[in-house]
Amino acid sequence: MKNLFASIPKDLEQEFFETVVQGEGIKVERIVSRGHRSPASGWYDQAQSEWVVVLKGEAIIAFEQEGDVVLEPGDHIDIPAHKRHRVKWTDPEQETVWLAVHYSRRKA
Amino acid sequence: MKNLFASIPKDLEQEFFETVVQGEGIKVERIVSRGHRSPASGWYDQAQSEWVVVLKGEAIIAFEQEGDVVLEPGDHIDIPAHKRHRVKWTDPEQETVWLAVHYSRRKA
Repeated sequence: MKNLFASIPKDLEQEFFETVVQGEGIKVERIVSRGHRSPASGWYDQAQSEWVVVLKGEAIIAFEQEGDVVLEPGDHIDIPAHKRHRVKWTDPEQETVWLAVHYSRRKA
Repeated sequence: MKNLFASIPKDLEQEFFETVVQGEGIKVERIVSRGHRSPASGWYDQAQSEWVVVLKGEAIIAFEQEGDVVLEPGDHIDIPAHKRHRVKWTDPEQETVWLAVHYSRRKA
């Protein structure tokens, strides 16, 4: 058994990504940020959909179309494939722990 | 945007299950327990694998082979398909909020 809030590297110079579990067309990832953000230019444009929740800390995701969304602990959001977004801000004063589930939408 | 710790029904006579997001071969579920447990006889024997994390509260999962595992906030465990288990105990004094990801293992 592991804990999502444990084993966080002390040196968070880089954002920390860890695959928690992986299956057929699905990956659960733990992300730890501390002041990290996406590069100022450009957007994430992902082939898979991504469901994301902030478990600790605070973050702002910017969407190209809809603007900013502030995420506090427990807040979750579903990002469909190819919906352009970026991480605009994460709290520099504490670790922000995210869980992301990468998955594919059902075929209609 | 929704919050995993909000919109918890006041009446938790029954355990609360909610599908958070669903995709191709994958379902993310929020479960809220308050003293609930599995029926004393019998085991869960699931066709899909299940990754589960306790986000709030406390629970004990019993495995047929390995015995009991206590889960506190952040603790997560991966339950392969057909690994027989049951929820032996959840805290009766507070809500236990779980997240469960039902998925299929990769074909070898």
